Amino acid sequence: MNILVPFDVQTPKTRLKKQLSSEERQAFARALLRDVTTAVVEAGHTPELLATGPVETQHAVTIKEEPLTGAVNTVLQQRSPPTAVLMADLGLATPHAINRMFKPTADVVLVPGRSGGTNAFLTRHPEFYVNYHGGSLRDHRRIANRIGASVVEIDSFRLATDIDDPADLIEVLLHTNGAASQWLKENGFRLDSDAGELQLVRSQK
Amino acid sequence: MNILVPFDVQTPKTRLKKQLSSEERQAFARALLRDVTTAVVEAGHTPELLATGPVETQHAVTIKEEPLTGAVNTVLQQRSPPTAVLMADLGLATPHAINRMFKPTADVVLVPGRSGGTNAFLTRHPEFYVNYHGGSLRDHRRIANRIGASVVEIDSFRLATDIDDPADLIEVLLHTNGAASQWLKENGFRLDSDAGELQLVRSQK
Repeated sequence: MNILVPFDVQTPKTRLKKQLSSEERQAFARALLRDVTTAVVEAGHTPELLATGPVETQHAVTIKEEPLTGAVNTVLQQRSPPTAVLMADLGLATPHAINRMFKPTADVVLVPGRSGGTNAFLTRHPEFYVNYHGGSLRDHRRIANRIGASVVEIDSFRLATDIDDPADLIEVLLHTNGAASQWLKENGFRLDSDAGELQLVRSQK
Repeated sequence: MNILVPFDVQTPKTRLKKQLSSEERQAFARALLRDVTTAVVEAGHTPELLATGPVETQHAVTIKEEPLTGAVNTVLQQRSPPTAVLMADLGLATPHAINRMFKPTADVVLVPGRSGGTNAFLTRHPEFYVNYHGGSLRDHRRIANRIGASVVEIDSFRLATDIDDPADLIEVLLHTNGAASQWLKENGFRLDSDAGELQLVRSQK
């Protein structure tokens, strides 16, 4: 089983520009990546990074400078299935949640993300390919259908939550104790509920 | 097993004010409620509405005019456990997702919602009580802990997604074919992905 985790080495987490400096976004993205790869390892699998450039890691790295869709499709063409791909920002991923992807025997297992994204998938079908964008789930359903592949979707909040937006940082602090959560705490972030709703606040260093 | 679905008869779905008129919000909230109660029935259970006033339904209704927290706590005091409570706007709920709540044998089963809410719970412990607000999940974890109740949390995107905000309407159209989805389609809503990202658009009637 190939388990690939695509990682944008250059400009990760641009939607956190208001909350984090460029350097901080790099560090936070790497903490998320560590949490995802650790969860994959603890689930009993061997992750491999599919990175846009060199990256410091203990795991195998394949470098593809192409954008995400092209990089993943190149790998899908070059390797024999089964291949699984998990986004590097699934900061709530647990070994249990990841293993739920491997249980169905369907040709294609899709893990929906919020807003119609595809946060992870597993394919056992040699003709499956991807087309990542905001609403990629519908495309991936259609592609699977067109090639006659059976499809199962995994219902997981942890895997549906990619850590992209400021509100997602709340989820990290609420649901995990991994590297990303530690990084946020060490950098002054905490949850505050004085106003009733949970808010993310940051103390000055 | 008591299975209660709290329902705000008067002013549901206020966060959809820009998208829907007051009358439309009433109709849409009732469509969501139908989807939730249908999923509960198809899961093999008997739902009961906990409503703020009279409501037309084929199910049993208990009327409590208090705000949500007080109403649920009154019922928890009056009934013998086990009692489960599911929010009326879990528009992606399926029988399968609902049944996942009933599998663990823990004293308290919590179903996290996005942003730290509690979208559903099941209690077998006579002392458990609720305190609903934006970040209620943390409180419910603490309450369970304080009364010595064992806790399990259910990892479900479908149950974590309460249909509150405009972006949630996209999820309804993407993941369901129930009454709420039908209502949206009949009222001109559809998904558009011309701009790459999935957008919700509404045609003039």
